[in-house]
Amino acid sequence: MKQQVQPEVQTEVQTEVQTAPEQKSRDVLRLLAAADDADGLRRYVKSIGVNETFSAILRLSVDDREKVLTTLSAEDAADFIEELPNQHAAEMIGKLSASDAASILSEMESQDQADLISELKAESAKAVLAEMHPEAAANVERLSSYAADSAGGLMMSEVIAYRDDMTVGEVLAKLGERESQPSTLGMYIYVTSRSGKISGVVELRSMVLSSHSSPMAFISKPCLSVRDDATLSELDEFFDQHPFLAVPVVGADRQLVGVVHRQHVAEALADNAAATYRKSQGIIGADEIRSQPLLLRSGRRVSWLSLNIVLNIISASVIAMYQDTLSAVIALAVFLPIVSDMSGCSGNQAVAVSMRELALGIIKPYEIMRVWLKEVSVGCINGVILGLLLAGVAMLWKGNPYLGLVVGVALAVNTVIAVSIGGTVPLILKHFGKDPAVASGPILTTVTDMCGFFLILSLAAMLLPHLTVG
Amino acid sequence: MKQQVQPEVQTEVQTEVQTAPEQKSRDVLRLLAAADDADGLRRYVKSIGVNETFSAILRLSVDDREKVLTTLSAEDAADFIEELPNQHAAEMIGKLSASDAASILSEMESQDQADLISELKAESAKAVLAEMHPEAAANVERLSSYAADSAGGLMMSEVIAYRDDMTVGEVLAKLGERESQPSTLGMYIYVTSRSGKISGVVELRSMVLSSHSSPMAFISKPCLSVRDDATLSELDEFFDQHPFLAVPVVGADRQLVGVVHRQHVAEALADNAAATYRKSQGIIGADEIRSQPLLLRSGRRVSWLSLNIVLNIISASVIAMYQDTLSAVIALAVFLPIVSDMSGCSGNQAVAVSMRELALGIIKPYEIMRVWLKEVSVGCINGVILGLLLAGVAMLWKGNPYLGLVVGVALAVNTVIAVSIGGTVPLILKHFGKDPAVASGPILTTVTDMCGFFLILSLAAMLLPHLTVG
Repeated sequence: MKQQVQPEVQTEVQTEVQTAPEQKSRDVLRLLAAADDADGLRRYVKSIGVNETFSAILRLSVDDREKVLTTLSAEDAADFIEELPNQHAAEMIGKLSASDAASILSEMESQDQADLISELKAESAKAVLAEMHPEAAANVERLSSYAADSAGGLMMSEVIAYRDDMTVGEVLAKLGERESQPSTLGMYIYVTSRSGKISGVVELRSMVLSSHSSPMAFISKPCLSVRDDATLSELDEFFDQHPFLAVPVVGADRQLVGVVHRQHVAEALADNAAATYRKSQGIIGADEIRSQPLLLRSGRRVSWLSLNIVLNIISASVIAMYQDTLSAVIALAVFLPIVSDMSGCSGNQAVAVSMRELALGIIKPYEIMRVWLKEVSVGCINGVILGLLLAGVAMLWKGNPYLGLVVGVALAVNTVIAVSIGGTVPLILKHFGKDPAVASGPILTTVTDMCGFFLILSLAAMLLPHLTVG
Repeated sequence: MKQQVQPEVQTEVQTEVQTAPEQKSRDVLRLLAAADDADGLRRYVKSIGVNETFSAILRLSVDDREKVLTTLSAEDAADFIEELPNQHAAEMIGKLSASDAASILSEMESQDQADLISELKAESAKAVLAEMHPEAAANVERLSSYAADSAGGLMMSEVIAYRDDMTVGEVLAKLGERESQPSTLGMYIYVTSRSGKISGVVELRSMVLSSHSSPMAFISKPCLSVRDDATLSELDEFFDQHPFLAVPVVGADRQLVGVVHRQHVAEALADNAAATYRKSQGIIGADEIRSQPLLLRSGRRVSWLSLNIVLNIISASVIAMYQDTLSAVIALAVFLPIVSDMSGCSGNQAVAVSMRELALGIIKPYEIMRVWLKEVSVGCINGVILGLLLAGVAMLWKGNPYLGLVVGVALAVNTVIAVSIGGTVPLILKHFGKDPAVASGPILTTVTDMCGFFLILSLAAMLLPHLTVG
């Protein structure tokens, strides 16, 4: 295991020198590919590991990337590409000729093939499938028709299953003939009826302890299964409740179609959690990689920013309505961004708590009233504390208690509004089937900004004679 | 598998009625516990599932909670508590008497015991350990001394390992004697030397195909292992590079101390990703659950908000320095929050991209210059687009091209500043061993707010004669 932490004492000069490794790996890859040294390339890629290779390949020109991937044997290229996030793997595969892409894909497991095919543009996908073995292509097409986060989308279709009328000895002999495939032969062997319906499961270790002449039906145990359209959260719940490492997936009629491994469910959940974080930060564009083309990167980011600037202009228009009040008490301008930003923070805390409680399953989308009452009580306490703090600062600065009153009350009330919105909006969005991570933030910020500006400026307008005295 | 999605057509009235299920489960739990009906309680808990039970128990008073947990058999209570996030599990356990807690803990796997013990307050942990079997307590104390996200902290200490001079037949006989423990007997049996050092691994399926008289040393293969202090990201890299379901953990001297499963690494990564999201939103306080006491909840949230208000006041003080300019051109007050908020959004996108690239391992913390150059180019394009947009709005509104110039240039320049900070700060924090998710946001917001206010107001001060004409 490489230790990638850098020493703590590190000067600017060293930093300059240390960018060398990435450039070196990039140059070595290019040179080995140019020399058509497939074997040297394979050994070099193994020696630097997947992350380093990915990082180096991203630094190559498109032509050099293609040269490196086609110089590697299809098997080695597949080993490397399988480890990348799907979207980036598809980007690399999409740049290759359909026949090169097909031969790399053919070295992968069916599930990885399906993931990649569904990430490719429709016409490239079609071209690649046309180059694959017809049977494999049909299998991949079937797998890629499942939603990515459903049991069908997460399962492997390579299942070790034997008919229930075979004996243990026959199955052991069959197993012995199989190539070594540690990733497909797990702890369980499934048993099916003559018609392909799942009828039970045999643990590998109970075969170890059984007579070779027993029929599989005799030692198999009844077996839970999930439907191919089970959702990720249903699978999460299933593995929460059952200690199994894997569960068979069945279609209509209990036909065995694949097997979902616990680890793939955990990985999908990890990906989703990370994506939730990115969505909340950048909404569109946060899954970019900096070696993607500049215009693609800036375009995806700016599309979300443009929507956001419109929302910002809407909320700032409240300030425009109160220009007279503001020019009479210019000190208020200092407090406008403070109140809007602090309310945003309070509201975001409530959003984060609701998202977590929804994920843990301890609140249901319809429990809006309960969440709202809980949030109002926290909001009142924190609003009063923050309001007093800000009022104190305002009074110390201008010596006018009415200024303190205006900004303190505005912040306190707006904190209650912000946590009310922040706590309940994710539930409402979830209830209507929308992704709370994407929309909660902008809705929250726009409304709390408008309310914050309105509260400060309308309170100030009411108390204007007192404010202009100081 | 329960379908928890509510029907789409749902009125206010139905919402009121539908809060009933949670209250019903809570009341049933209380009644069964009051009647000391351990068996009925167990069956009810199984029937409603872990999430529903957790949700119902959280709605009980502290006394009723204790009654429910102690009425359940220790084994059933352990089954339930194992499924909760550690922090909440510890909260429940911490409320029980030491002996009740110890008997529930004794039903768990060693790793879950250690996780819980390290979450408990020091004195409760000591009291619970004193009630446990001395050998088990010593084991738990040793396990809980490891960092939670290290190999030692993630491993199970129950390993199936046999000496290399035993025969396959002897091992099979030993395995036959063991109780059925699907969670500890995986695909691998480890082989150790006389001194307890790991010497190899035997796949269960190769035992199936071997003669019973072969010694284990004969069929064992060399075996990779990780040190007990390996970090989570090292483990992630290990499982990325190797297709194993588990890896043995060794102490100094290659002594076998446990085994880390791929699924536990994936689960730890998922937890970390979710925590990153919450940290970025609420920093302190976002892992609350709304049934925790009010003052605890509001206190944890307000401690982070108080820090934030100080940062906000610092950045808003820039506005205070330019009060004269602002009162001369009051329209600028409308644009201050827009520029500060938009720059924050642009900067957060860059933070999210850097966090992802760090997590994928395709940038190293020292590649600050490369990231900065990439961000500056995106920042220039997006800054110009957003600046022109905002300048257009300002000109349309006031008909003064100089106002447009001021706010447009300020937004464009501040966008470049924001993406520069947002892209590089996570790398710098990571380099110094700090968690980028916690500190990137506040640093970014404070600096971009100050720069944004300063840019607008200082540009306006320079162009004041032109601005006051309109």
